[in-house]
Amino acid sequence: MKRLLIIGIGAGDPDHLTLQAVKAIAATDVFFIVDKGEVKHDLVQLRLDLIAEHGRPPYRIAEARDPERDRAAPAYAAAVEDWRARRARACEALIRDELADGQTGAFLVWGDPGVYDSTLAIVEDILARGNVAFDHEVVPGISSVAALTARHRTSLTQVGRPVHLTTGRRLAEDGPTADDVVVMLDAHCSFAGLDDHHIHWGAYLGTPDEILIAGPVAEVGERIREVRAEARARKGWIMDTYLLRRLEG
Amino acid sequence: MKRLLIIGIGAGDPDHLTLQAVKAIAATDVFFIVDKGEVKHDLVQLRLDLIAEHGRPPYRIAEARDPERDRAAPAYAAAVEDWRARRARACEALIRDELADGQTGAFLVWGDPGVYDSTLAIVEDILARGNVAFDHEVVPGISSVAALTARHRTSLTQVGRPVHLTTGRRLAEDGPTADDVVVMLDAHCSFAGLDDHHIHWGAYLGTPDEILIAGPVAEVGERIREVRAEARARKGWIMDTYLLRRLEG
Ligand SMILES: C[S@@+](CC[C@H](N)C(=O)[O-])C[C@H]1O[C@@H](n2cnc3c(N)ncnc32)[C@H](O)[C@@H]1O
Ligand SMILES: C[S@@+](CC[C@H](N)C(=O)[O-])C[C@H]1O[C@@H](n2cnc3c(N)ncnc32)[C@H](O)[C@@H]1O
Repeated sequence: MKRLLIIGIGAGDPDHLTLQAVKAIAATDVFFIVDKGEVKHDLVQLRLDLIAEHGRPPYRIAEARDPERDRAAPAYAAAVEDWRARRARACEALIRDELADGQTGAFLVWGDPGVYDSTLAIVEDILARGNVAFDHEVVPGISSVAALTARHRTSLTQVGRPVHLTTGRRLAEDGPTADDVVVMLDAHCSFAGLDDHHIHWGAYLGTPDEILIAGPVAEVGERIREVRAEARARKGWIMDTYLLRRLEG
Repeated sequence: MKRLLIIGIGAGDPDHLTLQAVKAIAATDVFFIVDKGEVKHDLVQLRLDLIAEHGRPPYRIAEARDPERDRAAPAYAAAVEDWRARRARACEALIRDELADGQTGAFLVWGDPGVYDSTLAIVEDILARGNVAFDHEVVPGISSVAALTARHRTSLTQVGRPVHLTTGRRLAEDGPTADDVVVMLDAHCSFAGLDDHHIHWGAYLGTPDEILIAGPVAEVGERIREVRAEARARKGWIMDTYLLRRLEG
């Protein structure tokens, strides 16, 4: 039997790695890297650094090129489904051709594998197609949500109250659906105009480029837009997450 | 200046500890343990084990007895506030009396410090009271939510859709407020009757006593109630978390 590990590596800081993840990396024979192209090169580099640091030779790295996703498509979920299907085929080929029986393969997943990441769904797709069989295990990781609140030294939740985790698109469509809302995958600063909210914003969390800004949206919203646009232009990509908290009164 | 670390230790598995947490424990002079009494003895024991494993001598352990919380009080938030105020005074005394200038103290917090935990609010209270000054830092940890989804090998989120994190009380009052809802702090199996939902349930996640049950609530709900009651009676305490997902159609 082949064994597949889906390892959460944390949201940017190499020290986000758990001891469980360190042991999982050390137990891996073949690391599968799906390259997102040069723009997100830094994100691939962190994975290679972690492998170099914690991998136990002999191990191999097997790379596939990530299929392009149609980011202009109006139907977001459909575009993701299509991209995911093509990605599943690429990953299936990797597992079939690059991993021998008795060996352990691994995907190193950014943040926590359960938080807005497609790897687990892709693994389900591959198992459902039935062309290749394997056991799999998931190693939890520090998500960008946990990284965000820790760096701001604030709590995600308030006593006895819910928190909603959502995307930029959903925030733009639905507005804040609770007093506390965490927003990910937002390319458009959808917090703009939410002047009755406080924001804890973080970009490149855990990395040397980390930026933190907090305050009432009415006061810091414009500054976040500017800082975000400037950083994105300079580095070529950005990942940011924020917690919105309705102001009292 | 005194330095205080609030260190997330993960949800039960000693290997949930991050490298950042390992380094933070090694940098600590004084560990503050607030004992919840003998019932949750196992939870204190994990902390002592982690200190023994990763602490760098000479270090000290300073203990305070957790004030009793009035669990029968009808106003949950008010009872928590009152208990928190008394706990803040106990922690303030620890930091004032047990930590010298230039030293580093630490609280080891279960799971992630941002998820339904009072330590950060208590630290804010102490700073606001102004009787003792210190710098503080937060180290994120693997929450029971991340542990739950990893052990069930399922994703917390679905593509482009929100997930709500709430408590058993709120679920009982409001019902499921989204297609995907994670419930913590539920003493009453408030999922009962949600027959149009699938449940991923986990108790004592990451520990040798871990129990996982998944399936449609209509099929597994009763079994979870029984298993939970039996485990709780046997061990004297239980911690369980679950993800509800509305069934299609
Ligand atoms: C495809 S999702 C992956 C999330 C990841 N699985 C996690 O647990 O954080 C990408 C989104 O995560 C957030 N994100 C991931 N890493 C981040 C970081 N280091 N700083 C800020 N946001 C981050 C951003 O909202 C980004 O749009
Ligand atoms: C006071 S909250 C603390 C949560 C913690 N900060 C975290 O990040 O998981 C306690 C609740 O967390 C959940 N929990 C914590 N550890 C757990 C575990 N090992 N297994 C299942 N649930 C757990 C349960 O819902 C429990 O009622």
